[in-house]
Amino acid sequence: MAKDDKVKGKEESPKKLLEGFGSEILADIKSQKDPKFRTVSRTRSNIIYDQKKGFLTMGRATEERSFLNAAQTKRFMQTVAIASKCHKFIKENLHTSIRGLFYQLKYSLGEDIDENIFSEQSESNPLIEDLEASLEVRREDLNLNATRRGVLAGNLKIIDTFGDEKEEIDASKMGRSGWAIPSDVDNEIKFTEVKAKYILIVEKDAIWQRLNEDGFWKKENCILISPQGQATRGTRRLIRKFADMGLPVYVFNDGDAWGWYIYWTIKTGSINLAYIGGDIATPEARFIGVTMSDLEKYEFLKKMTLKANEVDLKRAQEMLEYPWINCHKEWVDELKKVLKLKQKLEQDTLQGPRLTFVGDYIRDKIKNKDFLP
Amino acid sequence: MAKDDKVKGKEESPKKLLEGFGSEILADIKSQKDPKFRTVSRTRSNIIYDQKKGFLTMGRATEERSFLNAAQTKRFMQTVAIASKCHKFIKENLHTSIRGLFYQLKYSLGEDIDENIFSEQSESNPLIEDLEASLEVRREDLNLNATRRGVLAGNLKIIDTFGDEKEEIDASKMGRSGWAIPSDVDNEIKFTEVKAKYILIVEKDAIWQRLNEDGFWKKENCILISPQGQATRGTRRLIRKFADMGLPVYVFNDGDAWGWYIYWTIKTGSINLAYIGGDIATPEARFIGVTMSDLEKYEFLKKMTLKANEVDLKRAQEMLEYPWINCHKEWVDELKKVLKLKQKLEQDTLQGPRLTFVGDYIRDKIKNKDFLP
Repeated sequence: MAKDDKVKGKEESPKKLLEGFGSEILADIKSQKDPKFRTVSRTRSNIIYDQKKGFLTMGRATEERSFLNAAQTKRFMQTVAIASKCHKFIKENLHTSIRGLFYQLKYSLGEDIDENIFSEQSESNPLIEDLEASLEVRREDLNLNATRRGVLAGNLKIIDTFGDEKEEIDASKMGRSGWAIPSDVDNEIKFTEVKAKYILIVEKDAIWQRLNEDGFWKKENCILISPQGQATRGTRRLIRKFADMGLPVYVFNDGDAWGWYIYWTIKTGSINLAYIGGDIATPEARFIGVTMSDLEKYEFLKKMTLKANEVDLKRAQEMLEYPWINCHKEWVDELKKVLKLKQKLEQDTLQGPRLTFVGDYIRDKIKNKDFLP
Repeated sequence: MAKDDKVKGKEESPKKLLEGFGSEILADIKSQKDPKFRTVSRTRSNIIYDQKKGFLTMGRATEERSFLNAAQTKRFMQTVAIASKCHKFIKENLHTSIRGLFYQLKYSLGEDIDENIFSEQSESNPLIEDLEASLEVRREDLNLNATRRGVLAGNLKIIDTFGDEKEEIDASKMGRSGWAIPSDVDNEIKFTEVKAKYILIVEKDAIWQRLNEDGFWKKENCILISPQGQATRGTRRLIRKFADMGLPVYVFNDGDAWGWYIYWTIKTGSINLAYIGGDIATPEARFIGVTMSDLEKYEFLKKMTLKANEVDLKRAQEMLEYPWINCHKEWVDELKKVLKLKQKLEQDTLQGPRLTFVGDYIRDKIKNKDFLP
């Protein structure tokens, strides 16, 4: 985040928002009122599935954090300390991780007060969420990097304004490596010349490499992404941004507990991050496979199945109970097949007949619109 | 690996080596002899620490795999099947993962024989190692990709000949993302215009991002690498290659069980990969920190320590018993301090005073040659 850039859809920059946050507390103190701020309640009961929008988000319940409430005093002070640090990071135009923030707090508060304000990072994490929810920004806007993972190739360019430099990266010229998706894909990152017909997400990096070697994204004119396992905040946000550009989003995963979980996290978001659900969920996403119905379409797959384990079967059962999943007849059918056959399929199996078969499978699926909602 | 490229230091290409492997077996069959091949014994007793060279490698024991030995018949056939698949991959100029290989074997052998030759991938993995050790090549030379992880920035260029394309990637123009280190850094990858004074390896990606944002590699003229945790085969091989260019290698890790482990794996290799020890170990590497002696040099660190857990203490004790570690007085002192103080330090702590302090710490350490062997 550069010093005075505005958050998308906001009138104010995060720096100004943090200053407003501080000013209000200061005003409370000056007028001898109890300093306080409001944040969205992130308890389970306030996390809802918004059927119309198609993702997990927060209800309307809010909570007050107040300094003079003895149970909240320490947390209140800690949150103010976090806000102050983030304000400093933005002014300095420097980023760090939440681990870096934790050690800054440990360092500076330890100097003034003869006691560590944070002894464990687990104490500071929920307070960062308090601040994100209260200011309606994401931690990335506060110069806090989250874990990054995920890779991309395709016909697009990335303008990365970074430190003193402005780099233009051509995602069609990254060879076998691809472009590593950063933590923050909003501030100081721009996507230009996006010339693609759709977004293809493949769970495993090995399959991404296989398709990249085949030039799949070139031939099909798509953007090829692998979250390299569970999608990070940055990768989920990037997928949302591409969907906002009107590009269809297809997900190609293992047909097992982990593959389904990765898909639904991309599509509807997750409970942990429901407070930023609208920014990172992509309800438009479609599941290409691998599915149990593939067994009927591709004869060879019958000898390529693995035995579903307990986690897979338990997960399939749980998924049948989620209202955002069991509203889709196609998913109910799929999961019932899994529970009946007690088998699963990995996306890697499609390399069985020949290495390039993976691409043919995806092409056919998309051409025939043969995917799950 | 392109079709007829030779492996470095070999007279023959991997394709020719595989053909030789097949021809010898065929000759045995034609002359009604028992088909067989020799490979290096990879049992624990044949793994040695070569004190002179400074890394873990194999002793002289070899083992014969023979078709007519009933206990080996299945494994023999499986290894021949793997060799045949790899030969096909090289001819096709296509790569896959060992998971992809597993499914190819499952597919094709299932067609001819009414039985799956491999039911679990764990069966095929040691056979790939047999083949690597027998032919004295690495699996990457046989078009088998291993897991990739790790990132790099610095003043160098990478020529990536990939599929139909030849990309030139400038590792000084990769913005916040860096260049993602591939599985294979030998075949069809070239490093040119390497203008750096040393290699700096930092364990955590978050610290890599911090230093990259500070332009540390630009100011210091170094190549900045993060293995992003434990170093993969590809990252270890790349470090070895840079050391071969005469560049000093410094490693900056957490001062705990995991950080030490990552360092020693880079430096002396590992038991699992001792059969390719010479290709991936970098005995020239030096450990910059974080160390317990830092507590004496940097006053603020005293309040930044964490309690060492059981794993850390157990590891420190074990390390004192390894001959390749306890031959270094500096390491004995360091580990004894850990066991006495029962504390540890993370590399992130150095962001305590200010975010840019991490770079100053590294600069000082290198300037004063203040590192462990």
